[in-house]
Amino acid sequence: MEKEGKTQLIIIGGGEDKRADKKILKEVVYLSGKDRANMLVVTTATSYPLEVGEEYRRIFYDLGVNRVDTINIASRKEANQKQIIRSLKDIDCVFFVGGDQLRISSILGGTEFHHYIQDKLEEGLIIAGTSAGASMMSEVMVVEGDEEDAPRKCTVKMAPGMGFLKGVIIDQHFNQRGRIGRLLGAVAQNPYTLGIGIDEDTAIIVNKENQIRVIGSGVITIVDGKNIGFTNISEQYPDEPLAITNVNVHILPTGYKFNLINRRASIIEEETKDIEEDRK
Amino acid sequence: MEKEGKTQLIIIGGGEDKRADKKILKEVVYLSGKDRANMLVVTTATSYPLEVGEEYRRIFYDLGVNRVDTINIASRKEANQKQIIRSLKDIDCVFFVGGDQLRISSILGGTEFHHYIQDKLEEGLIIAGTSAGASMMSEVMVVEGDEEDAPRKCTVKMAPGMGFLKGVIIDQHFNQRGRIGRLLGAVAQNPYTLGIGIDEDTAIIVNKENQIRVIGSGVITIVDGKNIGFTNISEQYPDEPLAITNVNVHILPTGYKFNLINRRASIIEEETKDIEEDRK
Repeated sequence: MEKEGKTQLIIIGGGEDKRADKKILKEVVYLSGKDRANMLVVTTATSYPLEVGEEYRRIFYDLGVNRVDTINIASRKEANQKQIIRSLKDIDCVFFVGGDQLRISSILGGTEFHHYIQDKLEEGLIIAGTSAGASMMSEVMVVEGDEEDAPRKCTVKMAPGMGFLKGVIIDQHFNQRGRIGRLLGAVAQNPYTLGIGIDEDTAIIVNKENQIRVIGSGVITIVDGKNIGFTNISEQYPDEPLAITNVNVHILPTGYKFNLINRRASIIEEETKDIEEDRK
Repeated sequence: MEKEGKTQLIIIGGGEDKRADKKILKEVVYLSGKDRANMLVVTTATSYPLEVGEEYRRIFYDLGVNRVDTINIASRKEANQKQIIRSLKDIDCVFFVGGDQLRISSILGGTEFHHYIQDKLEEGLIIAGTSAGASMMSEVMVVEGDEEDAPRKCTVKMAPGMGFLKGVIIDQHFNQRGRIGRLLGAVAQNPYTLGIGIDEDTAIIVNKENQIRVIGSGVITIVDGKNIGFTNISEQYPDEPLAITNVNVHILPTGYKFNLINRRASIIEEETKDIEEDRK
């Protein structure tokens, strides 16, 4: 593996392999410190915290970490308790399981727990999440929206996310659930925001320098609206189909990286060379 | 309705409304000459030629056309018979029903029937088709490919289509079946080709000047690969996920048109004004 900036976020599109070679979860363990890693699994998003927590605990121990704690913060009161913060003291990676992203944001948003892990990102903590635990990473998150339908203007419901990753909207289970329409609708609402759709068993690793790299068996779909020529998103008739021109789309599998600042893709093996030629 | 060039093709993404206001089929009838229109419904693609033919016959008569013939050409021998050509003499619109696009191309491709209707396009014949009858319109057609999965390199199977529309690959049932991945894979193989994904109950009307306009309740998705910076499509490992950068995507609902020559979208009501600003 080549050198890369310090990992801050690991954002998994859901459905990561938990039985065969566990490539993504292995990478989570590797980046968290391998046999020295202390993991905290947060089961707030799921309706089955015991089962899901136990499954990840077993997998992470199998993968050779030092310690796995699981925690099911189920109320804002709990999320503000001092003992919660104490439990985070020597944690290398906080891992958010899937479920409902609104549970994560509504229970944890703005609490001591939220502020603490956000502050610790700068000091080397890794925040990882899968499915709902991926969606909540951005400042604005997709809550729900029509799948496998023509993109319509107002069918994407969004809410404030946890804000660990700025300027980006994440969507997960992406190609598997036909979500390109809703991500286009989300990006059309503010083309400054970059849309990133992550497939199942696929993840992006975000480092301190705002570089992301792709791992896993699927692809990520990047929707860049900065050149949008026209969209009807702000006009009347909220339920009519979306019009949008000149959206720049990139499809990137494992082995590729993307710079969130200059919005350019490159191959990891040839780090210094941009794969895209300069466009005038 | 504004003036527009002579209609040559009406390409429907499948699932057009046949019960309520029948907007698309009404437009087919309108463009074919209303109460003077003679329609020929070709049921070659379907396994249920009697039922499907009868359904369209009833609808077109209900919509007030002069005459509807149905024909189930089931062999190349039939497609070369003189009486088939005679049956076409005073037809205004040949309408291809859905089913299997390979039945259309394998039974009709290169026959007298095929050559005759292609020649008649120049003289004002309209060729319309839905679903498989849409796919077969282009020179290269999508036969099958993975849906709702990460785009992979070699999972799109293509075959020579009937070639009524040049330089374009059509896909249908587009957002409803999550087909963006396979269309991207098809366009990556030759970025010169323009990909057009048409939703259900949605159609494009192609005129003699290579302008298309959109009608119906969904959208069309145009995938323009001319600025593609990089793709891994030609490399080894055929089953690996696709990488592709800088694909230009447009989403257009009813009320929009697109010029296939300069590849620019505009609003129909403001025909003379491009909605996209000139990009340097």
